Amino acid sequence: MNVLVIGANGQVGRNIVKELAETNHKATAMVRKEEQIDEMKKLGATNVVLADLEKDFSDAYEGVDAVIFAAGSGPKTGADKTLTIDLWGSVKAAQYAQEKGVKRFVQLGSVGSNDPDAGGEAMKPYLVAKRTADDMLKATDLDYTIVRPGALSDEDQSGKIEVSANGFSSLEGRSIPRADVAKVLVDVLDRSNTYHKTFEVLQGEQPVGDQLETL
Amino acid sequence: MNVLVIGANGQVGRNIVKELAETNHKATAMVRKEEQIDEMKKLGATNVVLADLEKDFSDAYEGVDAVIFAAGSGPKTGADKTLTIDLWGSVKAAQYAQEKGVKRFVQLGSVGSNDPDAGGEAMKPYLVAKRTADDMLKATDLDYTIVRPGALSDEDQSGKIEVSANGFSSLEGRSIPRADVAKVLVDVLDRSNTYHKTFEVLQGEQPVGDQLETL
Repeated sequence: MNVLVIGANGQVGRNIVKELAETNHKATAMVRKEEQIDEMKKLGATNVVLADLEKDFSDAYEGVDAVIFAAGSGPKTGADKTLTIDLWGSVKAAQYAQEKGVKRFVQLGSVGSNDPDAGGEAMKPYLVAKRTADDMLKATDLDYTIVRPGALSDEDQSGKIEVSANGFSSLEGRSIPRADVAKVLVDVLDRSNTYHKTFEVLQGEQPVGDQLETL
Repeated sequence: MNVLVIGANGQVGRNIVKELAETNHKATAMVRKEEQIDEMKKLGATNVVLADLEKDFSDAYEGVDAVIFAAGSGPKTGADKTLTIDLWGSVKAAQYAQEKGVKRFVQLGSVGSNDPDAGGEAMKPYLVAKRTADDMLKATDLDYTIVRPGALSDEDQSGKIEVSANGFSSLEGRSIPRADVAKVLVDVLDRSNTYHKTFEVLQGEQPVGDQLETL
């Protein structure tokens, strides 16, 4: 599949492009700036498209078979960007997918968005945006999978995870390397048992494929 | 009907409470602070419930037949409150309505939310929140009506409006008194022709009832 990676220049996004290069899929990396093109190619992107998530980016869907939405405004910008990037960017991405007939849509979510009210004052706006983006995606007729990782680390890929369809009872002291999150996002692409599923994921004891089989 | 007014202490909210007092409906005004109770009673509220939109406010639905959601964080707070009040408050309000079997739900929206991308950098985050709140409401099985007024003024109620189901081509130089918006929100309550409808409204030349009939 030709996979459009939205948010390819992000920390998880770069790992996704790298991961796709090691599979029989092709990565079409969507980035905003021309100077990011070379690095995307070095990471293994087959195509790079220049587009702005805050504008019309429907042209990026040309020849695309699946979408991985991994864009986020990050912790350095305000809640205004959380609204326009994390939430509205995702809504638009899913809308274009429907218009262009791209059925497969994998979304990078976040633990805690099953209950934004429990997240504390500082996290709540972000969790509301992520949760609503997920709920909007669920209301489409796309073959979606929503992957909600716990705290992200920069450790090397372990290839070992634990998934939970109902949410983990405790996240304390646990995390997951971004490289493992990327592996999960790519690995679910052609697993139809993950269609219309939402699950949390942490680093664990089982190989990625084995855990995804249980969903 | 016993109508729960969420955001009763807001500028439109107060007008809604006053308006309901002049009908055969009863207003249950939901406010956050004890010192707001007396004023709500003076405005004509039959009941006043103390509840915080950012917490669990499901108790406010006791004995309620319909909801008017008119809460907004206002222009003085940041986009974090736009997420937790304007968007999440509405999502929660609709969720409680479903849980409690309160089918009738009237939502105060905003012009411009049909196309948040056209709203300009400053307005876009707000319009994204309002639009998403509307879309989430539409995805429920509630008997909703979404009313999207243009620029609000503090002029006296005129009782004359113009509605548009497809959105006005130009809003320039036009506005609508908050008192007229309140009249519309109350007047649609028992008009079943407005169920599952979204429309824009401005001050106009026709009586409120006549215009609502056209929807």
